Amino acid sequence: MIVVLKPRCSQQAIERLTRRIEELGMKPHVIVGVERTVIAATGPEREGLEAEFEADGEVERVMPILAPYKIASRETRRDPTVIEVGSLKVGGGHIGVIAGPCSVEGEESLIEIARLVKQAGATALRGGAFKPRTSPYAFQGMKERGLEILSAARAATGLAIVTEVMTPHHVELVARHADVLQIGARNMQNYHLLQAVGETRKPVLLKRGPSATIEEFLLAAEYVLDQGNQQVILCERGIRTFETHTRFTLPLATVPYLKEKTHLPVVVDPSHGTGLASLVPSMSAAAVACGADGLIIEVHQNPAKAMSDGAQTLSVPQFAATLETCRKIAGALGKTLS
Amino acid sequence: MIVVLKPRCSQQAIERLTRRIEELGMKPHVIVGVERTVIAATGPEREGLEAEFEADGEVERVMPILAPYKIASRETRRDPTVIEVGSLKVGGGHIGVIAGPCSVEGEESLIEIARLVKQAGATALRGGAFKPRTSPYAFQGMKERGLEILSAARAATGLAIVTEVMTPHHVELVARHADVLQIGARNMQNYHLLQAVGETRKPVLLKRGPSATIEEFLLAAEYVLDQGNQQVILCERGIRTFETHTRFTLPLATVPYLKEKTHLPVVVDPSHGTGLASLVPSMSAAAVACGADGLIIEVHQNPAKAMSDGAQTLSVPQFAATLETCRKIAGALGKTLS
Amino acid sequence: MIVVLKPRCSQQAIERLTRRIEELGMKPHVIVGVERTVIAATGPEREGLEAEFEADGEVERVMPILAPYKIASRETRRDPTVIEVGSLKVGGGHIGVIAGPCSVEGEESLIEIARLVKQAGATALRGGAFKPRTSPYAFQGMKERGLEILSAARAATGLAIVTEVMTPHHVELVARHADVLQIGARNMQNYHLLQAVGETRKPVLLKRGPSATIEEFLLAAEYVLDQGNQQVILCERGIRTFETHTRFTLPLATVPYLKEKTHLPVVVDPSHGTGLASLVPSMSAAAVACGADGLIIEVHQNPAKAMSDGAQTLSVPQFAATLETCRKIAGALGKTLS
Amino acid sequence: MIVVLKPRCSQQAIERLTRRIEELGMKPHVIVGVERTVIAATGPEREGLEAEFEADGEVERVMPILAPYKIASRETRRDPTVIEVGSLKVGGGHIGVIAGPCSVEGEESLIEIARLVKQAGATALRGGAFKPRTSPYAFQGMKERGLEILSAARAATGLAIVTEVMTPHHVELVARHADVLQIGARNMQNYHLLQAVGETRKPVLLKRGPSATIEEFLLAAEYVLDQGNQQVILCERGIRTFETHTRFTLPLATVPYLKEKTHLPVVVDPSHGTGLASLVPSMSAAAVACGADGLIIEVHQNPAKAMSDGAQTLSVPQFAATLETCRKIAGALGKTLS
Repeated sequence: MIVVLKPRCSQQAIERLTRRIEELGMKPHVIVGVERTVIAATGPEREGLEAEFEADGEVERVMPILAPYKIASRETRRDPTVIEVGSLKVGGGHIGVIAGPCSVEGEESLIEIARLVKQAGATALRGGAFKPRTSPYAFQGMKERGLEILSAARAATGLAIVTEVMTPHHVELVARHADVLQIGARNMQNYHLLQAVGETRKPVLLKRGPSATIEEFLLAAEYVLDQGNQQVILCERGIRTFETHTRFTLPLATVPYLKEKTHLPVVVDPSHGTGLASLVPSMSAAAVACGADGLIIEVHQNPAKAMSDGAQTLSVPQFAATLETCRKIAGALGKTLS
Repeated sequence: MIVVLKPRCSQQAIERLTRRIEELGMKPHVIVGVERTVIAATGPEREGLEAEFEADGEVERVMPILAPYKIASRETRRDPTVIEVGSLKVGGGHIGVIAGPCSVEGEESLIEIARLVKQAGATALRGGAFKPRTSPYAFQGMKERGLEILSAARAATGLAIVTEVMTPHHVELVARHADVLQIGARNMQNYHLLQAVGETRKPVLLKRGPSATIEEFLLAAEYVLDQGNQQVILCERGIRTFETHTRFTLPLATVPYLKEKTHLPVVVDPSHGTGLASLVPSMSAAAVACGADGLIIEVHQNPAKAMSDGAQTLSVPQFAATLETCRKIAGALGKTLS
Repeated sequence: MIVVLKPRCSQQAIERLTRRIEELGMKPHVIVGVERTVIAATGPEREGLEAEFEADGEVERVMPILAPYKIASRETRRDPTVIEVGSLKVGGGHIGVIAGPCSVEGEESLIEIARLVKQAGATALRGGAFKPRTSPYAFQGMKERGLEILSAARAATGLAIVTEVMTPHHVELVARHADVLQIGARNMQNYHLLQAVGETRKPVLLKRGPSATIEEFLLAAEYVLDQGNQQVILCERGIRTFETHTRFTLPLATVPYLKEKTHLPVVVDPSHGTGLASLVPSMSAAAVACGADGLIIEVHQNPAKAMSDGAQTLSVPQFAATLETCRKIAGALGKTLS
Repeated sequence: MIVVLKPRCSQQAIERLTRRIEELGMKPHVIVGVERTVIAATGPEREGLEAEFEADGEVERVMPILAPYKIASRETRRDPTVIEVGSLKVGGGHIGVIAGPCSVEGEESLIEIARLVKQAGATALRGGAFKPRTSPYAFQGMKERGLEILSAARAATGLAIVTEVMTPHHVELVARHADVLQIGARNMQNYHLLQAVGETRKPVLLKRGPSATIEEFLLAAEYVLDQGNQQVILCERGIRTFETHTRFTLPLATVPYLKEKTHLPVVVDPSHGTGLASLVPSMSAAAVACGADGLIIEVHQNPAKAMSDGAQTLSVPQFAATLETCRKIAGALGKTLS
């Protein structure tokens, strides 16, 4: 932690702050410059210290040195985490492809789309049974019945199931049916939910919140990891910016940046990340090109009739063509896709 | 809903879309312009329709006409909602002042600060017992013991208690101690939690998420209202933008804008909205000047020793001076504060 | 400048970097911590150094200590700069009110509106002769004839004239007619233009660019100041964020924050800052309440017929009522307005 | 244009607005719905009308139907514009690669880097002679001498020269030396400059401003096109968002989105778009994968010694490896790169 003092600070301030740094178990180093005095504190930083020092009237600014996440950090573990569950393998050169409808809409239709996306190259099936919806008046999902249908689709196709869990008391139920527990973007900082999925031993697909910094994202992962569940897949799904031509802004530089900072695999959701089906093929290709470990894509037999998210959903032929391109790019990079 | 077709659209598209609009119980009006054909659909709009129509290959864009929130809307209820609970009155010309520490830290200290903020003019006491923290390694609050201390502070001072509830299964417990249930910004779209507080008959203070649009904010309120709980206080606490000199950006125009759209009272949190104690007095004054129905401010006997959020916390004398100015501005506008 | 090295950095890196810091005329202080080594460099920082050090393969991050603006800084000059030109006085407890139409539309109408805003309390007249417009097909202003009309309005009313200059070769012409040269938000980083107005001795009203950081804003002011023109008025007019209910987001905390960092006066433009006439009165009041030294407001005899910006323009009675409220708030704060 | 009236609007309002629409040469279509009355106006829309109608007290909202740019639109010209100047070919399946240092630093070094980037596959040389710098105290470029050095580098290598022009009165001078005139992000809405380069017949590389919407970006291009210069290359270089781990956020979905809306070629600047050299290779690959017609990349013999932008500059071997990957991806997509 670096504590920058205000110009012309008092000797008492320097003494008060160095004493406090020592009290906290760190070692203070006072550096007197021409225009500013700076105190560097080495040793174990704690969250919240920054605020304490900033509250001091003679302190101008405090800058932390260390990243606050530990288990997620590349410094803790150099090798990439590879997650494998049934048909889905993510990380270490394997690009997983999770595809399916936004919502589970019925047994027959789900099994049909599951077969179709599998044939096109998907390695897992997505589909929402519990749906977080902006409006209380919108379709909220088929709930428990939707989970049973997802299980039936796995039985019929062998595809691993990825589905969202929205609240702690549903974790056990959803975990009975799902292979991967998805935490939606709205719940990225729902800490009780993160702890609850952290207590299971199911892989967790954690979506980045639309206004989360990378540090907040990794600290959300840390809530899961800290409970002993090491299988976290990070998912970039777009952030909220001033742009309105797309639903969200998909900041793909997150992918290579995260891979520098963490050993966890990173997948991309170009469907939510753009909100427009016509942009999904290009952004899927771009995601693979910049190093994503997987894709999660909304696909429906008839996007115009989908019960939710139709505007961003690919048809089956569009999805197959998208994977075709992605496979070539993966090949050019020495990776495998499906 | 207005459906804008692509240039040179086919006659079949027009027929297909008008038929579908009729199927959905709305009335289509086809308007053939020089460069574009537009279909206006009148009648009850449903969420999700937009996406369905946008998924059509010959549709360029769909624009909704009606706001999707109903109960929160000024069109449903012209008169402002006034919320009164114990010592706190918010709305209808009464400016409520909720003040106290970020976290409950102990019984003696809480009762002391409660007495001090009351004396300075606060009409309710804030204090977190369950604390949502970005890092799993940060202090998470005194939990149930914290709630008991809040009850003790009410008994000692008569101040109404405002405290956060983080997960549905805590609602009953927190509601036993709190007068107002606070939903934090991270949980603005935690729909199970919104429904759970909607089932109580306690007033709810709903904080805007840092990337929530006004429509999403009002739809979150709608989740509570739709359960029959009409007592929702909206709280603007800052949004995430590219600005880094403040912790969040406090967009005060939200206050008069919300008051045009909804009858619910609107309070402002200048502590989180700026993250810097030195800016809190000015922004409190500005909030009152632009029509806020209340303020929620972090105050501590010794901000530098606060267990969380010290950098944005006022000392008691700073808080008293802030209220002094706000009282004058309220008076100039014909309103009452404390 | 603080240089944070990567974990397990080499001894050579430490030597290489300390040598380079010495070469640059600064003094290196090496601090070896448990997890990281940090080098603090004291002495004169130069812009661009940061990038040089960050390009080193063993450096993780570089943090500057000093603000890069000098003349604009409070550290250079403690007393607030007060700008007085004709009828307009801004700063030091005087709140200037600049009002008038978006564009100059004709001599008769401009003189009429000038009289009306003066009567309501305005202390300067605004009006665009050269208009920066997003579309090349939109009305671009009356140009030189517009300037002559502005001069005529000053002759008729005694109001100081504030008008925009868009390109260096117009500076001389505009300066012949204007009392204050306005630099629009789109031109905040048009450095040749900043230098050109810096060479005049006319006060400059510098609008913040919609994505400019505070540091970039003050450095733009520094371009003017560095040419010897000390009379710069900073103007907050809204930033671009994800919010769409207002044209821009007006981050009023800029006002008290800037006043901590600089001695230059700060005015607020609630017309562009919101884009909606119905929000302008509240935001004007809020701007005065949080310490603004002035307001710049669009006013027109008949906003619905204005040639540009009608949706955000006040009518004369709305403007008069707005000033009435602002005057009361200014009074409550011990300041004078008009 | 769609005019949505407020609930319970008066008959007079409907009459007043339809009359005004007719006056403006458009045809009104009144649609009376259950909750709202809407008036659709067909015929030629003009910029600014929106504001006029929104200023009407009984109007709730106005929604334009037509895009305001004309010449840039795909609707005006279906075939992609291909720009070819000397060694550089951009568009129509040809991926141009513009590479070189941020600033021209000297003749010998520029010719050396030009040879090196050419050998690695670059098809044009970039290098700033006039440098827009955030701080007035930073290195401002070698100016006219820098232009002469660029000419010398072209003579030595045959590479086309891309360099920035900052102000209208430099256009003639820069055009004497450059093959492509670059308009920097800070000047995207410097309309006098856009018109000045529009009057030349040199290709223009127009960088997107960091807070420009797509519509504003295309309207800036329209300023150039409207002067008769049809050769505009659009450049996505990152937008300003709340993200701080990268210098800007690179929203690659701009590439396929722009290609739907306009026939102009689109190139990507991953150097400014990320600000971090380690992310440039991945983002270059992603840009090619999502359909970019070119790349503009900062390369230097020794990034740590570059006079500006070192942190985002590639070394020659890094650049060569990046192009190697990009070439494979281009090949997989049936395109050619260098």
